Amino acid sequence: VTRYGAAVDDGRPPGFHEKRRDILTGAARVFERRGFSAGTTKEIAAEVGLSQPAIYHYVGSKEDLLGEIAMQVSRDMTSALETGLAAGETSREQFRAVIREFAAAVIRNQAEFAVFWKELHAIPEAARTAVLADERKFLNRIGSLVKELQGTGELPSDAPTPVVTEAIIGMVCWTYHWYRPGRSPDADQVAQVFCDLLRLS
Amino acid sequence: VTRYGAAVDDGRPPGFHEKRRDILTGAARVFERRGFSAGTTKEIAAEVGLSQPAIYHYVGSKEDLLGEIAMQVSRDMTSALETGLAAGETSREQFRAVIREFAAAVIRNQAEFAVFWKELHAIPEAARTAVLADERKFLNRIGSLVKELQGTGELPSDAPTPVVTEAIIGMVCWTYHWYRPGRSPDADQVAQVFCDLLRLS
Repeated sequence: VTRYGAAVDDGRPPGFHEKRRDILTGAARVFERRGFSAGTTKEIAAEVGLSQPAIYHYVGSKEDLLGEIAMQVSRDMTSALETGLAAGETSREQFRAVIREFAAAVIRNQAEFAVFWKELHAIPEAARTAVLADERKFLNRIGSLVKELQGTGELPSDAPTPVVTEAIIGMVCWTYHWYRPGRSPDADQVAQVFCDLLRLS
Repeated sequence: VTRYGAAVDDGRPPGFHEKRRDILTGAARVFERRGFSAGTTKEIAAEVGLSQPAIYHYVGSKEDLLGEIAMQVSRDMTSALETGLAAGETSREQFRAVIREFAAAVIRNQAEFAVFWKELHAIPEAARTAVLADERKFLNRIGSLVKELQGTGELPSDAPTPVVTEAIIGMVCWTYHWYRPGRSPDADQVAQVFCDLLRLS
């Protein structure tokens, strides 16, 4: 499975998925800079050095590009969660690993995450329904982990779990807004700060 | 000074500023739902029960509406900061009061804050320059408070101050994304959870 979640042996010509991935990253950059409505496939084509027909061939319309970006973010969040949960024995270790994987995903695909949260209203219906269902599962699973840590007193036990969960997710998500590649500390260091702040080091 | 920062005795007819404020709130709701590019002054007029010429009379064009929303958010953040700083004797009390005021501002003007962060790219140049300068001052001032609390060990002393600062701001800002008026706990309770999580109760 590639970074974009597509199976490798699906009969597509070599390089198809890499090209597709580059196009989605370029599209995310254009949509982030200009907004989804104002961004054009012409600008996206210029951004990635391809023709407009090539953009249509590899992904499709502007709406398809946004839908694919949203699905990509959704897969990234789910995979960060699964990798993190599998990486720890205790709830505390799992939590730390989830924060680390989630921060890394936001930083790695910063433009995609920014577009996802800014343009939720514009995501085509089918993709939106799918990603909102994924987001609910993600929230519930993080919420269970938070509840376990509240039970042991590692997180404040009296606070309402949904607010604690959203506060922690917000801390990580907001990274898309301020992170500057090359100038900010790397993803592991950022995740470490989050865990230090939550006294879960 | 009204909620929108305008002086009361400025020669405007009675009700002018209230009407203006209602229009900005309605505009923020439309822009949040549909995006700035797709939203129209016709929809905004329908949202607030006024004519399109009335919208132009009270505020101006769609760009003026977005610029005013941004200035409003910026004034709200600055005023939350100033009120919070004035409310405490120690750094810890000041910090808690700033979090409380800031969370209350985000929750009170949720649509305005959402539009501000989603549509930064579309904000007219003059307003954008002003709000970005305000945002830097806000960040610096919160950063100083964080540094003081790191100095006393009330916040983790080894962590880089800019990341700690953005993590805390992100926790509060993200409230615009998940808060549901009437269903979520009130602003004071939400701020209390943030302080509990940071062990600054």
